Amino acid sequence: MSKKIDPTYPTCSIARSLQILGERWTFLVLREALGGTTRFSEFSANLGVSTDILTDRLATLVQAGAMEKRPYQEAGGRSRFSYHVTPAGEELLIVLGALQQWGDHNCPPAGGPTRQRRSRASGQRLSVAYVDESGQAVPLEDVTFVAKPQGTADAMSERAI
Amino acid sequence: MSKKIDPTYPTCSIARSLQILGERWTFLVLREALGGTTRFSEFSANLGVSTDILTDRLATLVQAGAMEKRPYQEAGGRSRFSYHVTPAGEELLIVLGALQQWGDHNCPPAGGPTRQRRSRASGQRLSVAYVDESGQAVPLEDVTFVAKPQGTADAMSERAI
Repeated sequence: MSKKIDPTYPTCSIARSLQILGERWTFLVLREALGGTTRFSEFSANLGVSTDILTDRLATLVQAGAMEKRPYQEAGGRSRFSYHVTPAGEELLIVLGALQQWGDHNCPPAGGPTRQRRSRASGQRLSVAYVDESGQAVPLEDVTFVAKPQGTADAMSERAI
Repeated sequence: MSKKIDPTYPTCSIARSLQILGERWTFLVLREALGGTTRFSEFSANLGVSTDILTDRLATLVQAGAMEKRPYQEAGGRSRFSYHVTPAGEELLIVLGALQQWGDHNCPPAGGPTRQRRSRASGQRLSVAYVDESGQAVPLEDVTFVAKPQGTADAMSERAI
């Protein structure tokens, strides 16, 4: 059941994330979990996925620290586990939102997208974007991925002005 | 080679995106393409992936509208295709950045992350976040996914105040 990090991608965080998350069912299990589903039987019913795959994907998410198992027992029933999203799992809401937004724009269903991302506080529509250090969105053309500078602390303070 | 949308997920944009993107190599091919790689031989050398898988994933990205093929011919060589990122492919930079950021936080390599997301204009470090209609980042706790309201235009103007 162990999902080892592929040794051919020892340093790229995209590749490392996908070692854990690079399978469709993993994201869809997480979508259900972030929506409040906690019990195996509910995941199974909502997703229509085989119990083998579901067992494997829940174990992957637990091992990655994105979900945790908690024992519970109903009156007269045997002991079972429920599955709960951790802070690391909640952070994946950004990945799910980015996937949803891309699907909304590029492969929407007939009739248009069925779900919207909104602020609980203001009701405003939300989108997923790159933001600068002040939390303000920047356009995609402004985004670049650079190698981590040597002597990071100094290099960063020079550039942060 | 056709990647049909799974009929069991006709409306969820997360599931629809993953029908196209839900495979590790698709994201890694796209990572290379967004970094400027255009030729089959370069993708192959940089990724160390089999030519069968690479051919399939490039076709998936072309069919999804995230990349496009352009013919080229070098002196004395036969006609070939190069592969270029489209605007829909550039939008996937948000998904890749979100995956990278999650990996940086939750499964970093020994020695820490190797790449940083930065603004070309200001040099500031960038992150991927939910933003409201004014482009200001909101905390994850404020994010909710809601069903698209009926009579959308009216409902949205009521809520946008």
